[in-house]
Amino acid sequence: MEVINIGMLGLGTVGSGVVRMLTDHAEKISLITGRKLVVKTVVVHDLTKKRSVDMTGINVTDDVTAILNDPEIGLVVEVMGTVDTACDYIKRALKAGKHVVTANKDLIATHGPELTSLALEQGCDLYYEASVAGGIPILRTIVNSFAADKIVEVKGIVNGTTNYIMTQMNQAGISYEQALKQAQELGFAEADPTNDVEGIDAAYKMIILTQFAFGKDITLDDVKLEGISNVKAEDIAEAKRLGYKLKLLGISKLVNKHLDVSVGPVLVPRNQPLAAVQNENNAVFVTGAAVGETMFYGPGAGELPTANSVLSDIITVAKNIVMGTTGVRFNDYSANVKLAVPSEVVYPYYISLKVLDQPGQMLKLTEIMTKAQASFNLITQTQLDEDYARVTMVTHKMSEAQLNEIKAALAQLDTIEVIAAYKVLGG
Amino acid sequence: MEVINIGMLGLGTVGSGVVRMLTDHAEKISLITGRKLVVKTVVVHDLTKKRSVDMTGINVTDDVTAILNDPEIGLVVEVMGTVDTACDYIKRALKAGKHVVTANKDLIATHGPELTSLALEQGCDLYYEASVAGGIPILRTIVNSFAADKIVEVKGIVNGTTNYIMTQMNQAGISYEQALKQAQELGFAEADPTNDVEGIDAAYKMIILTQFAFGKDITLDDVKLEGISNVKAEDIAEAKRLGYKLKLLGISKLVNKHLDVSVGPVLVPRNQPLAAVQNENNAVFVTGAAVGETMFYGPGAGELPTANSVLSDIITVAKNIVMGTTGVRFNDYSANVKLAVPSEVVYPYYISLKVLDQPGQMLKLTEIMTKAQASFNLITQTQLDEDYARVTMVTHKMSEAQLNEIKAALAQLDTIEVIAAYKVLGG
Repeated sequence: MEVINIGMLGLGTVGSGVVRMLTDHAEKISLITGRKLVVKTVVVHDLTKKRSVDMTGINVTDDVTAILNDPEIGLVVEVMGTVDTACDYIKRALKAGKHVVTANKDLIATHGPELTSLALEQGCDLYYEASVAGGIPILRTIVNSFAADKIVEVKGIVNGTTNYIMTQMNQAGISYEQALKQAQELGFAEADPTNDVEGIDAAYKMIILTQFAFGKDITLDDVKLEGISNVKAEDIAEAKRLGYKLKLLGISKLVNKHLDVSVGPVLVPRNQPLAAVQNENNAVFVTGAAVGETMFYGPGAGELPTANSVLSDIITVAKNIVMGTTGVRFNDYSANVKLAVPSEVVYPYYISLKVLDQPGQMLKLTEIMTKAQASFNLITQTQLDEDYARVTMVTHKMSEAQLNEIKAALAQLDTIEVIAAYKVLGG
Repeated sequence: MEVINIGMLGLGTVGSGVVRMLTDHAEKISLITGRKLVVKTVVVHDLTKKRSVDMTGINVTDDVTAILNDPEIGLVVEVMGTVDTACDYIKRALKAGKHVVTANKDLIATHGPELTSLALEQGCDLYYEASVAGGIPILRTIVNSFAADKIVEVKGIVNGTTNYIMTQMNQAGISYEQALKQAQELGFAEADPTNDVEGIDAAYKMIILTQFAFGKDITLDDVKLEGISNVKAEDIAEAKRLGYKLKLLGISKLVNKHLDVSVGPVLVPRNQPLAAVQNENNAVFVTGAAVGETMFYGPGAGELPTANSVLSDIITVAKNIVMGTTGVRFNDYSANVKLAVPSEVVYPYYISLKVLDQPGQMLKLTEIMTKAQASFNLITQTQLDEDYARVTMVTHKMSEAQLNEIKAALAQLDTIEVIAAYKVLGG
């Protein structure tokens, strides 16, 4: 049987999983692809580090040219992380006519268009299924199974760290700080959790999902971003009382044929399938004009789930090599859709306020709401302490422009402070 | 742009949806495939019937040779239903060198191996994504994204009619007969609901899923089959009290490397994602050795969801034609796995009994359980009427062989009657 030689950049958690799965499932993979897939060379940073996986017969080096200059290596698998170095290596691999599979979300979200164009020019494959939602095969599913449909919305729980924290806050009633600490102890959050808890990781994934679902290249600046580090246990409890779970959701949707992309805490109705996604799991909910509502659920990270997605890309490349069909873009679809403006983007909102407990505050609030032509569905007031009350409301649908107007007017007052303003789904 | 001419067999709900989507999304489809896809001829049974979709420019006939003998037609889409006639037409189409897309689950479940072999011989494509779980792209996902993994279990809610009935029984506490009537009024159940409520439709889907997940061809006789027509409101209520939802589940799983395939009512823990699948929706839960637990959720039927799956097949064929890669089996994977024997298949069971209210019955029951080396976790007894009590129990794990022994022993008694014996998930 002919051999396809693989060069791997990096041998961390995912890389080790890829080596392990290529060995363990070699027979099935050969049966399906008609080729023997062999990891020939692995480039690592630290040659002295002990590896958890059997590297017998594999050339381990810290010299990247051992892959880039080896004409026998037809496929490069990048699982080293970083943006600039990985980008440099991948470009050099593509220029050398090698196909590339990467799990590098940050890289694809920031340099995707450039790299896919280069791959196309070089007649090379470039696949990155593992870059979004770890073990959930969402990119390939959008390409293959929504090709004839018109996707109107993609929303998802695409960051396991924040979903773990939010699940624990919801179930155990603990604070953000307590839940974060617990997540760190269990290895679900990093020592510096910024990238996860501020929604940046989720935003990168939404950039890639947006490219696949709507054929549109966007950047981080195009994503309206709010993290979870300011989320209060009281608001989670209040949401629960109202029948919702608070989740960090990425939402990319068409509004009047314009695209709106956001990442932030959202109130999800208890019976919406996304509400059932617990702890570190991920799920992507895709609404198609024809197919309606679908959801794809699974592990968002982890050695073997992520490695499995890398493997599905490797097998796709192997099949393409066999059939002589390499050099086609992972996602063929591109469309020229504009971004929505704040006056078009309409949701009900959950707003919670800290209000100085003196007469006339409710009147002020009502005046501001009325001026913005906004109204509410439900309002509750509880005493916070001797001086302050807590007011929460769920508004009728209003635009982001109206919300911004209300927030700006409230910021002028020193008696009312906005604690939270979250979108409400399904209103 | 070059044209691919399509011949359609049938113009019912799904067929109309296919014509509609090919028209509505023509531009996107051409962009992706590089071909113009045109429905040239449709064969219908009744030429006089009024159609809900615009048929301008399409040749409508009741003569199947208008498709089979037309050399311009390269792709036949079968959405007519039936087994024998559809099988005959598809064979003739393949023998004429035409690619085939079908939504016909009964046909694929009963004649799949024969038809896929014929397609392979003829170098033709044969796709049937729409045959399982309507709008959920589960077959293609298994092929593409679990290729490197080892699937250990596929379980699912794959029949919308029965899930609607079970959801209503669970939510409204109504009887099977009431829920069925309601489903029929809403068009979720047919006048003769046998195929759905006896689990036959679900079993056909499990036959196809088993072929994809485990590479094994099985027949209806290999599926242990129990429907929902005997399900009692009392058992649903009792399951609810215990923290479960009763669902009609198809389960295909490896047990000691042997395969066990069943369809029947199963108690699903409330926090298992399948428990959240409501009404006519479907979901398939796939467990991979590497990837872990994933779930694919969506509409199981309906004009446009099913048409979308047919379209994803049509686009795949069109891409294969363009790239010259037709004639590859939809599912390449085959494996020689044996079926499990009853002593290998182990679950906890929910058992409910009607027991004559006289002394000594509990002793008899306990003796029978002990003899079968079975034990229980929980047992409850309630008075049914003056003469009878209702006993329900959740057993520890036991084999099907043990369950059969217990049932056989109880059948010898005229004082104890088995009302239900359902598997319990996650025990």
